[in-house]
Amino acid sequence: MPEFLTLLPPQDALKKILAYLTANPAPEQVDSDQALGRVTASPVLAPHPLPEFPRTTVDGFAVRAADTYGASESLPMYLNLIGEVPMGAAPNFELDSGSCALIHTGGMLPPGADAVVMVEYTQSARPKEVEILRAVAVGENVIEIGEDVRLDQVVILAGTRLRPAEIGGLMALGIAQVDVARKPLVGIISSGDEVVPPQQRPAPGQVRDINAYTLSAVVMEAGGETRMYGIVADTRHAMQAAAERARRECDLVVITAGSSASTRDLTAEILDGLGKPGVLVHGINTRPGKPTILAVCDSVPMIGLPGNPVSALVNTYLFVVPIIRTLLGEQPRPDAIRPARLTINLPSQAGREDWVPVKLISSIEGEPSGVMLAEPIFGKSNLIFTLARADGLLKIPADANGLAAGEIAEVYLI
Amino acid sequence: MPEFLTLLPPQDALKKILAYLTANPAPEQVDSDQALGRVTASPVLAPHPLPEFPRTTVDGFAVRAADTYGASESLPMYLNLIGEVPMGAAPNFELDSGSCALIHTGGMLPPGADAVVMVEYTQSARPKEVEILRAVAVGENVIEIGEDVRLDQVVILAGTRLRPAEIGGLMALGIAQVDVARKPLVGIISSGDEVVPPQQRPAPGQVRDINAYTLSAVVMEAGGETRMYGIVADTRHAMQAAAERARRECDLVVITAGSSASTRDLTAEILDGLGKPGVLVHGINTRPGKPTILAVCDSVPMIGLPGNPVSALVNTYLFVVPIIRTLLGEQPRPDAIRPARLTINLPSQAGREDWVPVKLISSIEGEPSGVMLAEPIFGKSNLIFTLARADGLLKIPADANGLAAGEIAEVYLI
Repeated sequence: MPEFLTLLPPQDALKKILAYLTANPAPEQVDSDQALGRVTASPVLAPHPLPEFPRTTVDGFAVRAADTYGASESLPMYLNLIGEVPMGAAPNFELDSGSCALIHTGGMLPPGADAVVMVEYTQSARPKEVEILRAVAVGENVIEIGEDVRLDQVVILAGTRLRPAEIGGLMALGIAQVDVARKPLVGIISSGDEVVPPQQRPAPGQVRDINAYTLSAVVMEAGGETRMYGIVADTRHAMQAAAERARRECDLVVITAGSSASTRDLTAEILDGLGKPGVLVHGINTRPGKPTILAVCDSVPMIGLPGNPVSALVNTYLFVVPIIRTLLGEQPRPDAIRPARLTINLPSQAGREDWVPVKLISSIEGEPSGVMLAEPIFGKSNLIFTLARADGLLKIPADANGLAAGEIAEVYLI
Repeated sequence: MPEFLTLLPPQDALKKILAYLTANPAPEQVDSDQALGRVTASPVLAPHPLPEFPRTTVDGFAVRAADTYGASESLPMYLNLIGEVPMGAAPNFELDSGSCALIHTGGMLPPGADAVVMVEYTQSARPKEVEILRAVAVGENVIEIGEDVRLDQVVILAGTRLRPAEIGGLMALGIAQVDVARKPLVGIISSGDEVVPPQQRPAPGQVRDINAYTLSAVVMEAGGETRMYGIVADTRHAMQAAAERARRECDLVVITAGSSASTRDLTAEILDGLGKPGVLVHGINTRPGKPTILAVCDSVPMIGLPGNPVSALVNTYLFVVPIIRTLLGEQPRPDAIRPARLTINLPSQAGREDWVPVKLISSIEGEPSGVMLAEPIFGKSNLIFTLARADGLLKIPADANGLAAGEIAEVYLI
């Protein structure tokens, strides 16, 4: 399986592997107040309507609308004030024609009332009497039972990543527990004879393992869990044993290869023999990240990432994150993309998609809304600190021959 | 302290309260691999240079550059192949003039070598001999000691929220623990006589507490911790006791008021008497969220949020999140803002900043990069599900008289 026979565009490569995957079917139930960031495994239905009683949306006076017809500043209507609706309880009176009741935002309409006049359009003339200065229609300033949410209405779709607003929605309906997709377990295998654990002081020629940790952090952010398989020796036997074990135990396996071509070739050979269909993509038309390998072995997606930390992290965003989202059954939401104006020319090769770490700078006077300036960060060796200094990754699309200074491009915030 | 005497623009209101706050000075040490999302309390210095040995950035042959001068396809230079640099170890040989060594990306240059010729520009003629087809300059394809990171260089600034890239950077330098800002403790007090805990079945006239939970979720996302003080009765005594206790115990206190004006007035009165300087802002020129109260009581920021769940959540994003970031000492990063083209006209009042929940839809052919369509979501009662259906909040700036269909506006992803 030689490297780079054909370089696929990243979107095509991703499609190729996603075609083999299905959403993880095993849901688990968690407490709603602990469910932030989890993805719903089934639709959430309203167990009762909202509101459950007719409520006012304003401060004012509950009335029968018919009693107010014709009311105006010059010709007010006079209604008897028969009481005040208490907050948090049903009023203990009914409203007859010719009468009204003081009511506060969110309060329950008394039986007999069908509208609310805002306090701004009233005047209190004498005790127990209210002047109505404007007519209201039936239902005005009132939310009827079920007007917000009907009984059994789907309020949260399956595949929704729960944000603060959804947590609030669950609480509004008294749903204390929610079915969410089990977190996909992502096995991480490090390789490369030059790689040592971060806790270890590297000898000359050695470097610390970075990729297992950046990858693990991205997996956690994306809603997965990680299992670390440590640093495996660059031998067929050791690599194969680790890859087989991880394939059995995990929902997704990522091997971060050493920096040498031989390690990457070994990874590809092993992934190709681990189960059907084997390697789907070997070589992607991006920079950085060309040597990435995508495989599916007996239904388990397996990815070989290049050893270079920037390449590895960029391709984690391009492939590992979408695969985790697919396994979670997550419905897509708009990505955090900001348009930004390039400060310098960025050459690139037509047909290849480039991802350039950039610093975003407040835009100058007169820019359209939200457009910032993007200043590329270059480093000879694509050190991880190139990304640590960046606010995001600027995309040079494959169909561009680079981008000129002053052009606006998409920056994916990282 | 009557409501709404003067309505401040949200940016001015925020500045007014932030002026009283300083970054929380108490750092704590956490394991670097558990530090994702935490904010550094002090700058991180490199304990050693990176790389620690001269490395090659390519696969090829380590050489003395002078030996390659004049080499070309038509007139190659011939060098003796004296060995291969092992991955992960220092080479056990020196390079003399006229010789070269096979080296793999990331490998350590042998003593005597000062450049690397890419394998593409070489040819192996006879065993133990390599044809060099192109000259290299001293240092070409080599990263010198400290070229990426110098000893004692600041690699991560104080106030940096740690992302996967920074976690990787810490690992690269073997920094196992990192000083981060202690998570600000945010006390949450619910009020409103109509409000019951979410676990409870509301009686007619009652609604469940939503705001404490949405708020708590946003606080966790922003890097704070929450302490819940439960639902407090709408009496001066109960509110005052809860507010005083929370002020003593927390770094920031948020009171979510009931929906009635009297509860909000009570909140303002209590906050004004709880410590100096008291209420700074009462009423903000936004929709939703006008009745928000900002106070500082003996150095503790205290916020009164309106009872309406959408108002409460919008103002949590506008005020609570920036205050948490300030307490963390966090340096700003670009917000997740997407430009989007409005599908309909949105009227608004000049001078007031509006935040409209919108659904984002893939843009049509021919739009500039990253611009989506924004479809406003309306609901009579600003129910929490208005936000649960939204991808973000569209901002109608205060200086606009609304926005017309087809205009591009900023959408803050939520």
